[in-house]
This record gives sequence, C-alpha cells and structure tokens, in this order.
Amino acid sequence: MTSVISLLTDYGLEDGYVAACHGVILSISPESRIIDVCHLVPSGDVRRAAAILAQTIPHLPAGMHVAVVDPGGGSRRPVAIKAGGHVFLGPDNGVLSWAAHSCGAEAAYELTNEELFRRPVSPTFHGRDIFAPVAAHLTVGRGLAELGPEIPLERLVSLPTPTSLVHEGMVEGEVLSVDRHGNTQLSVDAGDLAALGVRPGITLVIWLGRRQISVPFRETFAAVPPGDLVAFADSAGLIALAVNAGDASQRLGLPPGARVRLSLAP
Amino acid sequence: MTSVISLLTDYGLEDGYVAACHGVILSISPESRIIDVCHLVPSGDVRRAAAILAQTIPHLPAGMHVAVVDPGGGSRRPVAIKAGGHVFLGPDNGVLSWAAHSCGAEAAYELTNEELFRRPVSPTFHGRDIFAPVAAHLTVGRGLAELGPEIPLERLVSLPTPTSLVHEGMVEGEVLSVDRHGNTQLSVDAGDLAALGVRPGITLVIWLGRRQISVPFRETFAAVPPGDLVAFADSAGLIALAVNAGDASQRLGLPPGARVRLSLAP
Amino acid sequence: MTSVISLLTDYGLEDGYVAACHGVILSISPESRIIDVCHLVPSGDVRRAAAILAQTIPHLPAGMHVAVVDPGGGSRRPVAIKAGGHVFLGPDNGVLSWAAHSCGAEAAYELTNEELFRRPVSPTFHGRDIFAPVAAHLTVGRGLAELGPEIPLERLVSLPTPTSLVHEGMVEGEVLSVDRHGNTQLSVDAGDLAALGVRPGITLVIWLGRRQISVPFRETFAAVPPGDLVAFADSAGLIALAVNAGDASQRLGLPPGARVRLSLAP
Repeated sequence: MTSVISLLTDYGLEDGYVAACHGVILSISPESRIIDVCHLVPSGDVRRAAAILAQTIPHLPAGMHVAVVDPGGGSRRPVAIKAGGHVFLGPDNGVLSWAAHSCGAEAAYELTNEELFRRPVSPTFHGRDIFAPVAAHLTVGRGLAELGPEIPLERLVSLPTPTSLVHEGMVEGEVLSVDRHGNTQLSVDAGDLAALGVRPGITLVIWLGRRQISVPFRETFAAVPPGDLVAFADSAGLIALAVNAGDASQRLGLPPGARVRLSLAP
Repeated sequence: MTSVISLLTDYGLEDGYVAACHGVILSISPESRIIDVCHLVPSGDVRRAAAILAQTIPHLPAGMHVAVVDPGGGSRRPVAIKAGGHVFLGPDNGVLSWAAHSCGAEAAYELTNEELFRRPVSPTFHGRDIFAPVAAHLTVGRGLAELGPEIPLERLVSLPTPTSLVHEGMVEGEVLSVDRHGNTQLSVDAGDLAALGVRPGITLVIWLGRRQISVPFRETFAAVPPGDLVAFADSAGLIALAVNAGDASQRLGLPPGARVRLSLAP
Repeated sequence: MTSVISLLTDYGLEDGYVAACHGVILSISPESRIIDVCHLVPSGDVRRAAAILAQTIPHLPAGMHVAVVDPGGGSRRPVAIKAGGHVFLGPDNGVLSWAAHSCGAEAAYELTNEELFRRPVSPTFHGRDIFAPVAAHLTVGRGLAELGPEIPLERLVSLPTPTSLVHEGMVEGEVLSVDRHGNTQLSVDAGDLAALGVRPGITLVIWLGRRQISVPFRETFAAVPPGDLVAFADSAGLIALAVNAGDASQRLGLPPGARVRLSLAP
C-alpha cells in the first residue's frame, strides 16, 4: 500500500525549502506519495493554514499530514495528533487544531525522539529536520509510541473556532478566508442557513456593521450576470460571497475576520 | 503500467483546491502519476488554457488530461474526448478543443454516470467532484462507454482557431499568448514563414496596425544583444517576438488577440 | 530502486513548460520520481539558481539534478557532472558549479549524443529537449560515457565563490540571497563567526558601508520581539539577517551582492 504524506507550509515557492522537505521524505520513504496542499500561506498566518488544512483534509487519502506555519519559530513543541486514520504533524500552535478536531482526535504525542529527526536540527527549519522525517518514518514502520511521550488532548493549543451563531432568524459569522478569485468564505455552515429556510432562488440580506445589502442566493456564482454579487454554498459547505467574473472581497471591503450577519429578505 | 493524469486549472496555488483534486485521484487510483500542467491560468481564461493544453500535450505521455477553466460555473456539460491515445476531460466550453483536435478526436462522451463522481457534487467544484474522480476511474479499469452517452464530435463546443493567413507574401496572425518573460507568441506557424523564404539571419518587417518595425529573425532570442527585439521560431513551432533579457510584450504594447502581419524586409 | 530526478529552472509556473519536462521524463522513465526544486528563479539569474541548488542538494536523495537557467539561450554547451552520487545536468554557464563543487565533482561530459535528445531540439528549450530526456535515460540504464566526450573538470565554467573573508576580528561577506520573508542570507559561514567567539545571546556589529548597526545574535529570528532585527545561523548554516514578522531586506536596503562586515560588539 502506497503511503501518502501531505505538506502545508508558508515556505513559498521561490526557494528550495519545499524541495528539501520532499528530498528528506523520499530519502527515508522512497515509495511514499507527496501531496503539496499549499505552500503560499501568508507568512505566519496560522489561522489561514488551519482553515486550508481543515477544508482539504476530507479529500485526502489516509496518511501523514505535515503543516508548518510557525511565527514563533521553533519555540512551540512539535506534536503529532492521531485522528480518524490520519496523523497530523506540526507545531503545537493551533495550526492542526481544526483539522484534527474535525477528524476526531484520538491521541497526541510530543516529538522528542531525536533518532527520527534529521540532525543537526536547524532552529528555523523544523519542517525539514523534524516534521518531514518523522512523517516519513511513520510510513515505513515506526509507530506513534516511538515519537515521544503522549500528551493529553486537552493540553494541545487550539485556535478559537470561528463564530457562527444562529439567533432570532439571523446567522452571524465572520470572514474565514478570501481566495484567489476574491470569493469571500464565511464561517457560516450552509446547513444553518438552510434551517432558516434559505434556498437557492431567494434573496438574502447581508449586514456588514450598519450597511445592509440584498444579495441573491443561488446554486453557483455563475447563476448571476457577470459583475453581480451573489451568495452560494461553496465547495466546503460554507456560505461564500462572490462577484461573477469579479472580486467580492474588494467590492465589499471585507477582510478575513470581519463580522457578517445574514437573514432572509423580508 | 503506470497511468498518467494531468491537471490544468485556474484554481491558483494559494488554496488547497489543487491538493483536493490530487487527493481524490490518489484515493481512487493510488498508483497513478499526476502531472500539474498549470494552475495559474488567469481566472476564467478558456482561450489561454486551451493554448497551454494544446502546446503541452505533444510532450505528455498517453493518459487522462483534465482541464477545468470554467467561467460559466457548472452550467456547461462535462465531457470526455478520446483522441490519439489520450482522454481529455473538462467542461464542454472549448477548453479541450484545440488539444483534442490536434491529437485527432475520435469520440466524445457526456459525463452523466454519477457512480463515478464524488458526491455530493459541489456546483462550483466540478474539478474535484467530477473530472478528477472520473479520470482516476478510467485509469483503474472503467471504460469510456461507462461514462455516459456518446456525443457526436461536431456537437462539441470549439474555440475559433486563431487566425493565420498567408497572402501576397505576408503572413497574418494574432498574439496567442505572452509568457512570464514577456515573450509574445503569435498564431503563426514557423513553417508558413519558412514557405515565404524566411530563414534565420534575415530581417522581418512586422506590421502592427499602421506601425511597421524591422526585426531580425534568428534561431533564438539570445542571438541578439541584450535589450534588442528579435523574432524566432519558439519551442512550440510558432513565431515569437522577444527582447533578449527584456519584455517584448511591454515594449510593443501587444496584448493577446492583437493582430500582427509579418513579411520579408524588402 | 526508484530513481529521483530534480528540476530547477526559471520557467515560471504560468505556462506548461515545467509540465512538458515532467512529461518527457515520465515518457522515458515512468517509475522515476520528480522533485521540483524551484521554477521561480528570477529570469536568467544564474547566481540565484546556483545558490538554491547548492543549498538544497544536501537534502536530496542521490539522483539526476537538472538546472536550467540560461540567459545565453542554447549557446553554452550542455554538460553533465558526476559528483558524490549525483549527476548534475545543465548548461555550462556556472549554474551547476557550486553544487557540483560542494559534492565533489569527479567527471564531466559534454552532451552530444543526440540519440538521447528529444528531436527536433528547440534552440530555446534545452530543458525539455536535452536535459530532461538525458536525465531520464540515465535512470533507465544508459551510462555517463554514452552522453558524449569527457571534459576536463577545470574547463567547466565556474561562478566566482561569494566572498567570505575573516580578518582582524571581522568577517566580511556579501548578501547571497533574499527569501520570500525578506530574510537576508549572507555568504558568511556560521562556523567562521563562531571562531570569532560569536555565540547566541551576544550582540553583533554589522557594517554596511559606513553605516554601523548593533544586532542581537540569537538561535532563531523568533527570539526577538516582532519588528526587531536579529542575526542567526540559518538552515543552510549561513548567517542571516531577519526582522521577526517583518522584512529585513527592505529595512536594511540590502540587495543581493551588497557587501557586509560583521564583528563582535565591543
């Protein structure tokens, strides 16, 4: 059985950093398959990395998933979390928390077994020297118990779950992320909106602070004319705002973290 | 025999979208090899994607080739086209047409067999939920006839072939694409120019509307001094304009689609 | 045994150029594993490519390593250099020199055997038509002696080694490269600085022409408060200047090649 190792970092693609991780992995586990989840996470943006990992993991095969976005350098402890057939590896700063939680975290380990590291360990490149080689060793027969001491799950650092409240016929959430097309993803589950009676075809009211905008809710962004704003359930099952052939984030001036409320138009 | 699946999209590299497609493919077909043709096609630019696919396909092994650039969202029908040992999969909006035509299209199928899809199908992510899994299933024993009903080839949507006319000692074409270095590729076959007697070493006249520019025709852009304009037969067998160590597209102000005529200098 | 082929180019990711190289390799050597070292080397920047290759190679498995950054087009001779279990392939313009030297170059060959090329060879795409296919053939049983005539090692083009001088209690070097985060890597070996008595915890004086700046020397950039400048031994064993959560290159106005001297603070 081929083993899959995925990598998610903020290393960028302008250097050999990602290749060094690939090289370390293939040196230990030549038959493993590597999936590059994303290496263009904005520098140090743990929350963005956590969101990408949590939204991509349902589509990845069982395997080892390395995520290294680590504004604190190597000062956080390195951990591995077993969850639903996957093992997540990364710094204990919350980057793994949303994905591990959604997959059902079962056990966590601190990575202390230096035998499995690439040595000497660079204090600024744990991806290459700790996480990549440990993930690779796990695919060639090393067990989780060999990594280091078990950590109680409740001791792991967790990012706060993005707000999503349903109250008085309204759903409240925040901007979770903005993609390359300017599509603005909200921390609002499509199911919560459906429970309010929202169906493709109707009109939503979106409250941005004091501003109030009417937006058609459709199956896809392409259901409105080019240049029009639209709301839809995106490919992660969350509500997104888009402008067909345009940039909703720019149009609305909504950065990640901005609060948004949605309700049915009267 | 290892199977090859290639992917060409406008998903960008800042999210986990491409990785989700890799994950879906490897879940179904763990032994297949994935080639990322390009994921930085400008958002919705079907013509650019079609050009990249047609120019890359001669160098790819026989396999399944997924191309998803789909400004119309999921409203076009999803198709598979068998052509010269390859199978092309994508929306029926023309993105496959130049590549399928150049390889010799033999048969086309509408993708209707939902058993081969990832379900539920997101209306905004057919790459992940339709094209990637169908391509993967084709590599592990499913046949084309299982995909859905056959479509007459003449019913497929085709992009207009870029103009390339030879008349009165002149070749007329248009700017097909501009690469990262600013090299400006014309829809002019090197063979057509050779038929006019153009050989490396001579001087061309390039007509841009009313402007007229003399440009040396050489074997490569490096045959002229840095900063100089040059015409040459590029790696796709088409005529390209370049500035050695510079940006020809900027220098000439030629966007994709701009019309250009070429003749031998008198 | 799986064979590894790595690729380093300035082809960018906006076209199908890299995919064409992958396709050519997998057509010849379907079982080989490809590592993309980097394809975003600034156009024609041989020195930057040489630095990335030399710093990444210690982490790559034994294999074939193709590096094509070639501002002179195809006018340099194509070569292969055997060095420490690796074979480096590329234009003889110095791009391979630092990596080959650091691995211990043993023999070099001019690539003249057109049987191993993809023909016709495009004068502007030796990566696809010469280097990729020759590397692939080497993984499936062809020997180095079949590539072409041996070249004396001293005839290979070498880039000048970046200056790094130790004199009078001072280390002098230059800016080798600037990464995506703005971290500024100097051509100063961490060992040379250690020999001067520099240890994490002390303060360095950095001389930039007539300017003089005191900078804390720490284990990692994260050891100083966000916004502060810091010096540290980076993951390649060289001295780097960084701003925690900021951009040192911008702050200091130090482009690649700029000269820098370091000494212990009095």
